[in-house]
Amino acid sequence: MPLKNYRWFIEYFSSEEGHLHGIREVLFSKQTPIQSMDILQLGSYGKSLVLDGRIQSTSRDEFIYHEVLVHPAMLTHPDPRRVFIVGGGEGATLREVLRHRSVERALMVDIDEEVVSRCRELLPEWHQGAFEDPRVELRYLDARRYLEETAECFDVIVIDISEPIEEGPAYLLFTKEFYEIVRERLGPAGVIALQAGTVSLNDLDCYAAIQRTLAQVFPVVSPAWASIPSFALPWGFSVASKGRDPRSLAPQEVDALIASRIRGDLRFYDGIAHQASFLLPKHIRTRLANETRIIEDNHPLFAWT
Amino acid sequence: MPLKNYRWFIEYFSSEEGHLHGIREVLFSKQTPIQSMDILQLGSYGKSLVLDGRIQSTSRDEFIYHEVLVHPAMLTHPDPRRVFIVGGGEGATLREVLRHRSVERALMVDIDEEVVSRCRELLPEWHQGAFEDPRVELRYLDARRYLEETAECFDVIVIDISEPIEEGPAYLLFTKEFYEIVRERLGPAGVIALQAGTVSLNDLDCYAAIQRTLAQVFPVVSPAWASIPSFALPWGFSVASKGRDPRSLAPQEVDALIASRIRGDLRFYDGIAHQASFLLPKHIRTRLANETRIIEDNHPLFAWT
Amino acid sequence: MPLKNYRWFIEYFSSEEGHLHGIREVLFSKQTPIQSMDILQLGSYGKSLVLDGRIQSTSRDEFIYHEVLVHPAMLTHPDPRRVFIVGGGEGATLREVLRHRSVERALMVDIDEEVVSRCRELLPEWHQGAFEDPRVELRYLDARRYLEETAECFDVIVIDISEPIEEGPAYLLFTKEFYEIVRERLGPAGVIALQAGTVSLNDLDCYAAIQRTLAQVFPVVSPAWASIPSFALPWGFSVASKGRDPRSLAPQEVDALIASRIRGDLRFYDGIAHQASFLLPKHIRTRLANETRIIEDNHPLFAWT
Amino acid sequence: MPLKNYRWFIEYFSSEEGHLHGIREVLFSKQTPIQSMDILQLGSYGKSLVLDGRIQSTSRDEFIYHEVLVHPAMLTHPDPRRVFIVGGGEGATLREVLRHRSVERALMVDIDEEVVSRCRELLPEWHQGAFEDPRVELRYLDARRYLEETAECFDVIVIDISEPIEEGPAYLLFTKEFYEIVRERLGPAGVIALQAGTVSLNDLDCYAAIQRTLAQVFPVVSPAWASIPSFALPWGFSVASKGRDPRSLAPQEVDALIASRIRGDLRFYDGIAHQASFLLPKHIRTRLANETRIIEDNHPLFAWT
Repeated sequence: MPLKNYRWFIEYFSSEEGHLHGIREVLFSKQTPIQSMDILQLGSYGKSLVLDGRIQSTSRDEFIYHEVLVHPAMLTHPDPRRVFIVGGGEGATLREVLRHRSVERALMVDIDEEVVSRCRELLPEWHQGAFEDPRVELRYLDARRYLEETAECFDVIVIDISEPIEEGPAYLLFTKEFYEIVRERLGPAGVIALQAGTVSLNDLDCYAAIQRTLAQVFPVVSPAWASIPSFALPWGFSVASKGRDPRSLAPQEVDALIASRIRGDLRFYDGIAHQASFLLPKHIRTRLANETRIIEDNHPLFAWT
Repeated sequence: MPLKNYRWFIEYFSSEEGHLHGIREVLFSKQTPIQSMDILQLGSYGKSLVLDGRIQSTSRDEFIYHEVLVHPAMLTHPDPRRVFIVGGGEGATLREVLRHRSVERALMVDIDEEVVSRCRELLPEWHQGAFEDPRVELRYLDARRYLEETAECFDVIVIDISEPIEEGPAYLLFTKEFYEIVRERLGPAGVIALQAGTVSLNDLDCYAAIQRTLAQVFPVVSPAWASIPSFALPWGFSVASKGRDPRSLAPQEVDALIASRIRGDLRFYDGIAHQASFLLPKHIRTRLANETRIIEDNHPLFAWT
Repeated sequence: MPLKNYRWFIEYFSSEEGHLHGIREVLFSKQTPIQSMDILQLGSYGKSLVLDGRIQSTSRDEFIYHEVLVHPAMLTHPDPRRVFIVGGGEGATLREVLRHRSVERALMVDIDEEVVSRCRELLPEWHQGAFEDPRVELRYLDARRYLEETAECFDVIVIDISEPIEEGPAYLLFTKEFYEIVRERLGPAGVIALQAGTVSLNDLDCYAAIQRTLAQVFPVVSPAWASIPSFALPWGFSVASKGRDPRSLAPQEVDALIASRIRGDLRFYDGIAHQASFLLPKHIRTRLANETRIIEDNHPLFAWT
Repeated sequence: MPLKNYRWFIEYFSSEEGHLHGIREVLFSKQTPIQSMDILQLGSYGKSLVLDGRIQSTSRDEFIYHEVLVHPAMLTHPDPRRVFIVGGGEGATLREVLRHRSVERALMVDIDEEVVSRCRELLPEWHQGAFEDPRVELRYLDARRYLEETAECFDVIVIDISEPIEEGPAYLLFTKEFYEIVRERLGPAGVIALQAGTVSLNDLDCYAAIQRTLAQVFPVVSPAWASIPSFALPWGFSVASKGRDPRSLAPQEVDALIASRIRGDLRFYDGIAHQASFLLPKHIRTRLANETRIIEDNHPLFAWT
C-alpha cells in the first residue's frame, strides 16, 4: 500500500484533465494576502512552488523555464545594463539576469512580499543568493503602477508572473494598455520577455491572444515555446522588441554571445535551444496567424475558463 | 458536482506522477490474448486508444504523433516504394505512409489481431479506409519472426509499437539483435523510424539507450522528439538510416518534397517542424552523448520501472 | 507501478469527498434512454452496478442492502401475499421477496428495461433466477403512473430506487403525493419499505425529510439504517405501515418468523440485526425530531446538491 | 474548475480502495520522531488529525468516536476513580473521561510528545482544556513499559491508539502479552476499552483477532462498533472487563447513569446508542465465532496488509 503518497496534488488543466503528483512533504502552505502559496516536495519534481494551485517552478526543471525566459531576450539586446523584472518571486529570473556581465542594475517588483520572503528563505537553490547582489533593488508593489509612475528607462523587461486568473493578481499585466506602459519604459533597443501560457492544442487561446496583443504594441514579436516536464502541457513564451528580432541570431552567434556575456554554465539554453524555441509546429503557426483577439483592460483574458 | 466524471483514467508515469483524465464514455474495454485494450472517450482528448494502461493515440492529437513518426523517415529516403510497418494497430501510420505517391507496397505486421480489428471497426477517423487500399498487406504475426524469415527488402521500416514493458509484447523489438534483423531487410538507402519513449528529464534512460543501441547498427542515427499533449511528457523518436541523414534536409527542401511526394494536407509537419524535431535541448544532448548502455536480447530494457 | 488500476471509479459524496475504487474490469458501460449504466469489477467489492455514477449494489455486500430493505417490512405484515416492487432492477429485491413462503404474486415495475435486461444477463448472482419464478410479473413502466391507474391492492410495497437527482428518473417517487398513491394501493395491514439516502451526519437532509414526509401519510413510520461498506456512508431506510410497527417485534419473535416464513439462510438479517436497524444514535434522532420539511411534487428534493 | 481542491488526501483502505478528501488548508504537517502528522482542513469533515496517513479524528464527528470509546467502559465500572489512558493524543478521550464526576486521577501516557503538544496547541476544540484539569497527569513514554513497571492500579484503562502497522508505534499494544499486563494493573472490577479496527466485511481479520485475543485474558469481552462517517468503513471497539458485562446495562439504566455520573451533554451516546453499539449483524457475529487467531508478541498482527 502506497502509504507515503496519501497526499496528492492535482494541477487541473480543465475539469476533466490534470497532472497528478504524490506529495512527499508539505514544506510550507499559507494563504498570503494575494494568493495561496504552497511549497511541496513532489515525488517526481522535488521541491516545488505552487501559487493558487498551479506549479510555478520545481527544483528539477526550473532551469529550463528560467533560462528560456531570460536569455533569448537578454542576448537580443546589444548591451543590457538596466533590467526590470515584473514578479519573479522565486528569485531565479533575477539569478539568470545577474549572470549577464553587462547588467548594472536589476529592479525586481513583486506584489507579494510574503511569497518573495518565503522563497528567499525556503528556496535557496532557486535564487542562489541573487537577492544579496549589490546590483539588485527589490520592491513590493504593483508593478504596473510602478512603471506608470517612474521615469526610469530599462533595456530589458522580464515579465515573470502567474497566469491571468480572475481571482489572481496578474490579469491586468496581460493587456495592451500594460504593454504600452512597458514600451514607454524601454530604451530604443529595448526587449521584453514573458511567459505566455500553455501551447497545448486544447488551449491556445491565451497564447495566441497574447502574441496578437503584443503585435499591436511592438514592431517585433517572436512567439516561443519550451517543454517543461513539470508543467505537462507545452509552455509558451514571447520575446517582443523595439529593435532586433531574436530569430535573426544564428546558433553560432548565440553560442558566442553566451561565451562572452554570461557567467557560469547553462544547462538548457544554447544556440540550438535558442533556435528550437522559435520553431513552432504548423498547426500552432496557423492558429497564431488567424488570431484576432486583442486583450484590453476592459476586455481582459482569463486562463483556464 | 461533477457527476459526469465519476470514471477517471490515470496514466501513471511513476508511482508518484500521473496524467488524470475524466472518462466521458467507455467505448470498448477488453483483455485481448496479448494486452488490455480500452477505447475511451476522454474529456480533453476525445476518443483515445489505451493499451496496457497507456495512451497510444487520441483523436485530438494523433496527427502529431503519426506525422512526426512517418514523414521525416519517408522523405529521407529518395524513393520509398516498399514500406514495412511493425505494429501500428490504429492504421494511422499506414494512412500516413500511403499518402506518399511513391509507395507501391505497404506491409503491416501486428501481433494483436483483436486490437487491429477493433481499431478498424471503432477508430475510422484514424485509418480513414487505409486498410482497404490495394497496396496494403496486413498480417497478424510476430513482426520480428516475420522479418527473420522473409527474404523481401524494404525502403522504409516504421516501428510503431508500445513501450517495452515486462508483461507486454514489445520489449524484444527494442534490442540490438532486432535492429540488426531490420537492417538486413532494408535496401541500400533504407531508413527506419521508431517511437523511442519519453524524453522527460526524469526518465531519459530508454530514450538514450535506444539511440545508443541504434548507433551500434546504423551509420546514421537522428534522435528526434515532439510534444504530444495527450502524452503529457515530451516524446522521443528516432530516424536511423543506411544512407541520408534527415537533418541534412533544409526546411525549404522538406517543403518542396512534401509538395511533390505527399497527397493531401499535413497539419503538424512541414519544413520548420522537421527542423525543430531534431533540435534537442542542451541537457538532453549531453545525456545522449554520455550514454553507454546497449540494449540486447539477454539484457533488455523495460520502461517505467 | 500499479498498472492494473489505471482506471478508477470515484463515487462523489460532494465536490470535496468521494469513495475511490480501482476498476479491474469494465464489464458493461452504456447510456440507456433513462440513465448511465456501468457494471464494473471493482477491486474491493467485486462486480458492481453503477447507475448515474452511483453504486447501487455490489456482489460483496448486496446481501446487506437487500435483506435490510425487504425483510423488516415483510415480517411486519401478518401475511404478505401480494408484493409490489418499484424499481429493483438487479432482481435481488425480488429474490428476497420470493423467499417468503406466503408470497403469491410479486409485481415488479421498473422504468428502465435496458437496466433490467442487462442485470438479468450479467448479474445472475443477484437475481438467482428470480425473474423466472411463476409468481413474478415484470413490467417496464413508470411505477407511479401504474399505481395511479391500477385498482389492485398489495400487502407490501418495496420502493427500491436510486436517489432523487435532478437528471435522474427517481425524484417524483420521493414525494408526499407519491406516498399517498402508494397508501391507496395498500391493504389494511399494508407496509412499505424504501431506501432513504445517506445518514452521514454531513448530509441528513434527505433522510430526515423523507421520514417527515412519510409521517404525513402513514400512521407508523420507522426510520432504519445499516452500514453497507461499499456505500461508505451509513445508509438510511424506512418502514412505513398502516398497521403494525416493526419496532414492536422482539428479536426472538423475528427469529421465529424467519424460521417459519423465509426459505433458505440469511446472512445479515436476524432478530438482533432487526433490532439494531431501528436504533439510531442520539444526534440522528435529534435531527429527525426537528425536521419540518415535507417533500412535495412542486417542491421536490434533490440529493447531493 | 475546482481550483480550491488542488490538494487531495486519500485514505487508502487497500491498493484498490480509498476515501478521497479535498484539502482546504494544510494547518500543520511534520514527521515526528515516531510518525508522520498532518492537521488538515478537509472539505467535508473540517479540521482533521492524520497520523501515518490515517484519519484519527475530525472536528465534525470526533464526538462519536470519543463518546463510544469512553462511556460504555466507564459506566460499566461501578465507581471509576482512577483512569489510565494509553495514547489519546488529541486530549478528547481525556476530555470524556474527566466528565465523569467520580474520576479523581487520569493518567495519560502517550509516546509522541510532539503529537500531544501540537494537538494541545492546534486542536483546542478537541481537548477543551482537559490537559489543565488538576486531576490529570501526562507522561510521554512507552505505555507498555510504564504499565509493566508501575505498581499502581486503575479502575478503567482506555487504549486509544492508532492501528497496528509495521512501521508504526502501536503494534505491540495489541498482543495477548500486553493485555495481560493491562489486566494486572486493573482493580477487581476493572474495565478496559479500546478501538479495534475496521469492521468492514472486507477486512474483519483485525477486529476478530483482537476480540479473540482479549477473550484469552478477560472473562468478559464485548465487541462493539459504530459508524463514524469520516472513517468511511464501519469501526470496531471492544470493552473487556473483570466484572460487569456492559451488555447487561439496559437502556434506561444507561440513561440514569449518564444523568447521575456525567457532566454536560452528550451528542452521540445514550441508552439507545449503548445498546446499538453491541448489536452486530449476523455475518460479523459468525465471523467472530469462528476466529481462532491469538495475537502474540512474537506473532503480531498488522492492519492493512
